[in-house]
Amino acid sequence: MTELAELPATPGAARTQGRPRSSRAHEAILEAVLDLIEEGTTVEALSMEAIAARAGVGKATIYRRWAGKDELLLETLVKLKGPPTQPVGDSVRADLIRLLSVVGQKDQRAVRVMPCLMPEVSRSPEAYRIWQEAITEPRREVMREVLRRGIAIGELRADLDIEVTVSMLISPLLLHRMVRWNPRLDEVDDLTEQIVDVVLRGVAA
Amino acid sequence: MTELAELPATPGAARTQGRPRSSRAHEAILEAVLDLIEEGTTVEALSMEAIAARAGVGKATIYRRWAGKDELLLETLVKLKGPPTQPVGDSVRADLIRLLSVVGQKDQRAVRVMPCLMPEVSRSPEAYRIWQEAITEPRREVMREVLRRGIAIGELRADLDIEVTVSMLISPLLLHRMVRWNPRLDEVDDLTEQIVDVVLRGVAA
Repeated sequence: MTELAELPATPGAARTQGRPRSSRAHEAILEAVLDLIEEGTTVEALSMEAIAARAGVGKATIYRRWAGKDELLLETLVKLKGPPTQPVGDSVRADLIRLLSVVGQKDQRAVRVMPCLMPEVSRSPEAYRIWQEAITEPRREVMREVLRRGIAIGELRADLDIEVTVSMLISPLLLHRMVRWNPRLDEVDDLTEQIVDVVLRGVAA
Repeated sequence: MTELAELPATPGAARTQGRPRSSRAHEAILEAVLDLIEEGTTVEALSMEAIAARAGVGKATIYRRWAGKDELLLETLVKLKGPPTQPVGDSVRADLIRLLSVVGQKDQRAVRVMPCLMPEVSRSPEAYRIWQEAITEPRREVMREVLRRGIAIGELRADLDIEVTVSMLISPLLLHRMVRWNPRLDEVDDLTEQIVDVVLRGVAA
């Protein structure tokens, strides 16, 4: 771990050359949060001291950037997961397969970190809010858009429940890729396609 | 917490009167495991010392009953979840609704404990094996039986993938009831029925 706090000070450089030292500290702090959670530190037990020590920065460096632990955790999760995949406007089926094929697969680190957040998500309303805002809601929203389009073009039943349908599409993949809920699904090559086809047949107009 | 180890010894009573002291210690040990996990102790950090202290028994009392932590945890989870609900042989639809209506709802304690096991399940092959053996596999098996019956009577497509179908039926309910994946589903009264109906339409013969 680079001791960023001990890097030689280069006065002026920070502002004029893309703030390299600043952004390195920023990255190191986000990485430190992920490292600690991945190793088993609960969100509750996660302290600014531990994060600062792991990132090799002073606590003041963290507080200059984030008002508190919640804000820092939120940014860390948003960065970990990245922006949701966007539909391209193909067929409803092709767009759903495109969105679902990345569920739990973009990043091995996310696969390791997400289950570690579940105890906290179920215990703490604040952790739940952050998880919803940073991760689950933006992903549901892109999928709702595709389903609304399917209804508009008359492909899907006008009275389908969009929330239930989104959950039916994402949940089996999420549970399997995050915690390998059923090991036998490892052998199913076309899992995403099968799920999309069963649901689309189930909600066809 | 009753200090069971300090109960007055009643020689002979244990064997002739249904072993009341013994079974109370047994229950207290299982309860202690659940308490500790619920409060945030990871399976990894769970120690026989802590369990013994919490249950008010000596460590020897634990080791007389279980060979090790894995066996103790397995029995605790089996007891927590109870045996899977059995189908009654109604229509396929009615049986699926019966089996699914209890997913994540039998016991509020299970709802609190299960998310706490997820970090361990994803980190430790041993915790994963125990979770599969004690909880997920017996529940999948009763549901497979109902689907096989549906195929046999010609109601469901003969070439449906049973593992995928089981996962599509259980996963949305599991994710919602364990970690409230989508808060908007709270307002859906007939969630189980909707899921069963979409899947059955999707895999109809």
